[in-house]
Amino acid sequence: MTDFAARLTEGVRRHGPLCVGMDPHAGKVPALFGGDTARGLEAWGRALIEVAAGKVAVVKPQSGFFERHGPEGMAALAAITRAARAAGLIVLMDAKRGDIGSTAEGYADAFLSAGAPFESDAVTLNPYMGLDTLEPFAVRAAALGKGIVVLVRTSNPGAADFQMLDVGGKPLYIRIAESLRPLSERLMSDCGWSNLMMVVGATAPEEARQVRAAAPKALFLVPGYGAQNGRPEDAMTGLVRKGANVEGGVISASRSINFPASAAGAATIDAWQAAIAAAIDSARSELADAVAA
Amino acid sequence: MTDFAARLTEGVRRHGPLCVGMDPHAGKVPALFGGDTARGLEAWGRALIEVAAGKVAVVKPQSGFFERHGPEGMAALAAITRAARAAGLIVLMDAKRGDIGSTAEGYADAFLSAGAPFESDAVTLNPYMGLDTLEPFAVRAAALGKGIVVLVRTSNPGAADFQMLDVGGKPLYIRIAESLRPLSERLMSDCGWSNLMMVVGATAPEEARQVRAAAPKALFLVPGYGAQNGRPEDAMTGLVRKGANVEGGVISASRSINFPASAAGAATIDAWQAAIAAAIDSARSELADAVAA
Repeated sequence: MTDFAARLTEGVRRHGPLCVGMDPHAGKVPALFGGDTARGLEAWGRALIEVAAGKVAVVKPQSGFFERHGPEGMAALAAITRAARAAGLIVLMDAKRGDIGSTAEGYADAFLSAGAPFESDAVTLNPYMGLDTLEPFAVRAAALGKGIVVLVRTSNPGAADFQMLDVGGKPLYIRIAESLRPLSERLMSDCGWSNLMMVVGATAPEEARQVRAAAPKALFLVPGYGAQNGRPEDAMTGLVRKGANVEGGVISASRSINFPASAAGAATIDAWQAAIAAAIDSARSELADAVAA
Repeated sequence: MTDFAARLTEGVRRHGPLCVGMDPHAGKVPALFGGDTARGLEAWGRALIEVAAGKVAVVKPQSGFFERHGPEGMAALAAITRAARAAGLIVLMDAKRGDIGSTAEGYADAFLSAGAPFESDAVTLNPYMGLDTLEPFAVRAAALGKGIVVLVRTSNPGAADFQMLDVGGKPLYIRIAESLRPLSERLMSDCGWSNLMMVVGATAPEEARQVRAAAPKALFLVPGYGAQNGRPEDAMTGLVRKGANVEGGVISASRSINFPASAAGAATIDAWQAAIAAAIDSARSELADAVAA
């Protein structure tokens, strides 16, 4: 079985570290696709996947934008998740779930079990409730070659409120990264990286260095590049150069690729896809330049 | 407009502090209702709501158990949420969501907006990502008389991993409770309690006292009573006696009411509902005795 970490590492070697976020903000899905409805989100997502497949290794749908459309929106999320995996893309489900054991079993069944309704390659998780709340996901990751993606240092302005609190001389997020080390080791892949991934925002390069020191084998999911003003060289901080390539994580961009200005006036789906392709190519080259620098 | 805190306070005065959790664990929904399927969950939930209405003020569906059944499970969740509110019950949606601003808008639209697909009276939220991630929910709470329920001290064994870390002489969960005070004040209801509620586990009475001192006006949602071994007098710690009654929160029980041994052999829905009614009555009297003690 080729596991999550191995597939991601091979995908990043081939396509670079760009991960295409799928964040269908309220009112932003073009009328071309049916606009701000569950069917519109599904058509938009399928068109975006067609462009992303072959250009990037990884996509990251954001479940909240689908959940606001209710059960039909969740059906759209299930459909695009299946479509993305069928197109050979690795799917990081950005659901940020987290609950006590029995409920976590429910969420793990929703996102990681074989044949799950929203079966993904990995799912984002919130660690606040403790390590036992990650366990049902970790068990499935180990058995099925899936990944788990734990929030460590996020990229939003309020992230500092609690994540930066001093805990015995170290910020909380470093303490959390350190606490995850046994789990990271348990989920090691033969590829040399762990199937445990950590969210480490692109807006704080010095912090990325600290997390990398605390978690040398964890893959990083770096959000905040692009619209959230993370610079490409900053976003690259926690990744590891390997010859002409990079390893150890992916860098996610959503708004700059989902809704580039160049796609706003597109009259046809073909024209829209061309604009999205150009936005992906532009982000890919910007990151490739940062790797080469 | 009568807001969440006022309706909850009036409901607890009338019915006592018991909140009926709705946790349809995998494989636990009786064949009577269709078993472990989305339709089974909906039929089970509707039957449970019929019993709970008039006996308690508040129900708490746990979204993870519905999400594992995919979009159809989420449709069942939407249906029982509507049914519970139509029956006059206050619905605390136990979804433990939390994400950066734009995504949090999506979740807030899913659970708190008027006419939302899963419109509830309040939703549980994870604070790890920071105060700004609570804001979209707080805005809707203020405008629409809804509540927000923030995780502070949970009742699972691993809760101590991070919540108990020492932050400048105080555990993290107390620092979080203190940080929530301005928001709690902003969301004050005319009834004297805030529309900001905090999750404070029943397994740690001394800790409940500390959170109550840090957050005198926050309602408490106390999980862990019943199956998780919280004793009734411990569960009561953070609540406030008011004459012969109690105020300031609700105490949630799930497994002991969802799946009492007495209901296991029920041959008809009537017999099942009688067993559930007895389990609710028993928990209500146990809590009433603790109030009177």
